[in-house]
Amino acid sequence: VTRVTLLTDFGTEDGYAAAMAGVVASASPDAVIDHASHAVAQGDVLGAALALSRYAGLYPEGTVHLVVVDPGVGTARRAIAARVDGRFYVAPDNGVLTRVLSEGTDRALVSIAVPDDLGVSPTFHGRDVFAPAAARLARGDALESLGSPLRDPVMLPLPEPERRGDCLKGEVIQVDRFGNLISNIPGRWLEKHMVQVAGMDAGPVRRTYADVAPGELVAVVGSLGLLEVSVRDGNAADRLGADRGAPVSADVPAGPDDGPR
Amino acid sequence: VTRVTLLTDFGTEDGYAAAMAGVVASASPDAVIDHASHAVAQGDVLGAALALSRYAGLYPEGTVHLVVVDPGVGTARRAIAARVDGRFYVAPDNGVLTRVLSEGTDRALVSIAVPDDLGVSPTFHGRDVFAPAAARLARGDALESLGSPLRDPVMLPLPEPERRGDCLKGEVIQVDRFGNLISNIPGRWLEKHMVQVAGMDAGPVRRTYADVAPGELVAVVGSLGLLEVSVRDGNAADRLGADRGAPVSADVPAGPDDGPR
Amino acid sequence: VTRVTLLTDFGTEDGYAAAMAGVVASASPDAVIDHASHAVAQGDVLGAALALSRYAGLYPEGTVHLVVVDPGVGTARRAIAARVDGRFYVAPDNGVLTRVLSEGTDRALVSIAVPDDLGVSPTFHGRDVFAPAAARLARGDALESLGSPLRDPVMLPLPEPERRGDCLKGEVIQVDRFGNLISNIPGRWLEKHMVQVAGMDAGPVRRTYADVAPGELVAVVGSLGLLEVSVRDGNAADRLGADRGAPVSADVPAGPDDGPR
Repeated sequence: VTRVTLLTDFGTEDGYAAAMAGVVASASPDAVIDHASHAVAQGDVLGAALALSRYAGLYPEGTVHLVVVDPGVGTARRAIAARVDGRFYVAPDNGVLTRVLSEGTDRALVSIAVPDDLGVSPTFHGRDVFAPAAARLARGDALESLGSPLRDPVMLPLPEPERRGDCLKGEVIQVDRFGNLISNIPGRWLEKHMVQVAGMDAGPVRRTYADVAPGELVAVVGSLGLLEVSVRDGNAADRLGADRGAPVSADVPAGPDDGPR
Repeated sequence: VTRVTLLTDFGTEDGYAAAMAGVVASASPDAVIDHASHAVAQGDVLGAALALSRYAGLYPEGTVHLVVVDPGVGTARRAIAARVDGRFYVAPDNGVLTRVLSEGTDRALVSIAVPDDLGVSPTFHGRDVFAPAAARLARGDALESLGSPLRDPVMLPLPEPERRGDCLKGEVIQVDRFGNLISNIPGRWLEKHMVQVAGMDAGPVRRTYADVAPGELVAVVGSLGLLEVSVRDGNAADRLGADRGAPVSADVPAGPDDGPR
Repeated sequence: VTRVTLLTDFGTEDGYAAAMAGVVASASPDAVIDHASHAVAQGDVLGAALALSRYAGLYPEGTVHLVVVDPGVGTARRAIAARVDGRFYVAPDNGVLTRVLSEGTDRALVSIAVPDDLGVSPTFHGRDVFAPAAARLARGDALESLGSPLRDPVMLPLPEPERRGDCLKGEVIQVDRFGNLISNIPGRWLEKHMVQVAGMDAGPVRRTYADVAPGELVAVVGSLGLLEVSVRDGNAADRLGADRGAPVSADVPAGPDDGPR
């Protein structure tokens, strides 16, 4: 079974997402289609890049991940097909693969050759360019047969966290549906740190939400391996009025044996 | 692989959509179920008809498209099974197949024989009437075995566009999730026309959104082959306060060589 | 074909739901994954229990129903795997299986053995505990191999309807997406009853919505076999300002031959 996952900001109600699925089904009759999500916020390339990185590598090798969050449809932006660690990706070249590409080790990329005007809608590349390319990969066509090598994919300028000794500075890079504030600070940097987000103390890094009382702020290392701040049984984004870009910091307070002797 | 797609206005959260999928899975164990959408606006038969026409024909022949947007459930309205150009359809007879039927060339329709009261919920025909019929088609039962021939399916009175010389008049028939205003004016009628929608100039027909600056109105021939008006990187419906029924017109302005000599 | 259905309150946009699907796909390559819903209201265990009971038994035997609505993730709550009447269930032990367990006849339950900290995120058991267990069942592993027997699953204290002669008292236990008010009064108790909900008369129990005029209240026995109150072509919850817990009653009015003689 070859699986093709779809990730878009199309919603489902207008039939655009199903049109892509239909094209894949026709061109790759044995493919199993899995609608990962069509609920990405409109044009949110960074949000899609993070969502994709949550699941892409969990699918079996050979899976084709088709991603169409494409505010630049109709412009001259390129179309990418990629193979990263045994899985395939088809997407506009707008940075939506940033995390997948930066985390992967074995990578190959091509710029999808887009046929001339004939038959290709300049407003619906999802159906007319990306889905056919995904179907070809699902059928077993070689990546290299889809286009010419591409060496400089667009990468989103993800904010880099800073580390000066025990003092860590970063920011919120995503707010998920539960209102969890996901930062860019890697969990592996954290030891006995106390966390602050948007000017509020979130306490030490805990193992799980249940380590605080309901309604309290809690800092954990989340499922992406990044520092996250949540409210147990609540919504941290609403509570703190915090959104993408809100400052997150962590440091190790001086202990009783750290003072002058 | 036989695919069965589902299109409803049920949402997913109450389990109604999954109930239909379960019935199909039980009665047609090898069928691959594809949730096209359960997010059609409640009772929006026309919206469903347009969405369906975006994807139905893109699926392989033999696919069964199950459509339940059925504000008249429990009334005497008939239930339809149809074969159009090699694909199957199961739906209430309320016009939701209007576009598929009017665009198809090879058509056969039957009125699904609904068993007597026993075991059929008068409030959930999706589960009790339509899904079983779709499963039978997916299993390979002949269309004709599902009921008696039907020759007068309900067709929605879609507004007809007018054409007087170069002067085209139509209206918005759908607003999609992106706020694109989709008119009933066929793209093939358009040449050097200038477009107006809801009293605003939308300029000439462009090839793609990117032919105007961000934030500007742009007229294109969309993926349904119809004239659409959009705002690049924006929402035309919000911008113009326009909804279904808003007037759309197009004409060819007199050129410098068209004046008196 | 073994099907694995997913029911969560994760939404789809962040990639959490797809992460679970990816784990199932990798560990059980032939499984067909069906996203029943990811739109359960956040933390609504009762709503998920009712939704699940609408479709679980309609799927073929052998189906694995994976349910993750888990406000207690990270606490000491147990994880359940169950077999009920030939179908499998994997879920947190928080009552989300209440209806399935109470309606089933042939039941077996185990407490899923959760591996030690290593590799298990304390914030994403859907991916790290539940999905792997579902995949093992889909592959054919014996239920008993997943953990040790569990005899006291958490059951939600569903409100019990009362019956004194012809006088029935209950309450609204769910409001579905259409605003239908679903009560806990079994349809089989109803004969010539007149129904009241939230202090308003809803008339006799009708066969179907179409038995009243558009806009009127109508009481029917719905697809769960429970008394429901709707507004034809409208929204009963909005009309009555009624929510879960609103009182529902039914009685048989004295007829002309019931008076004193």
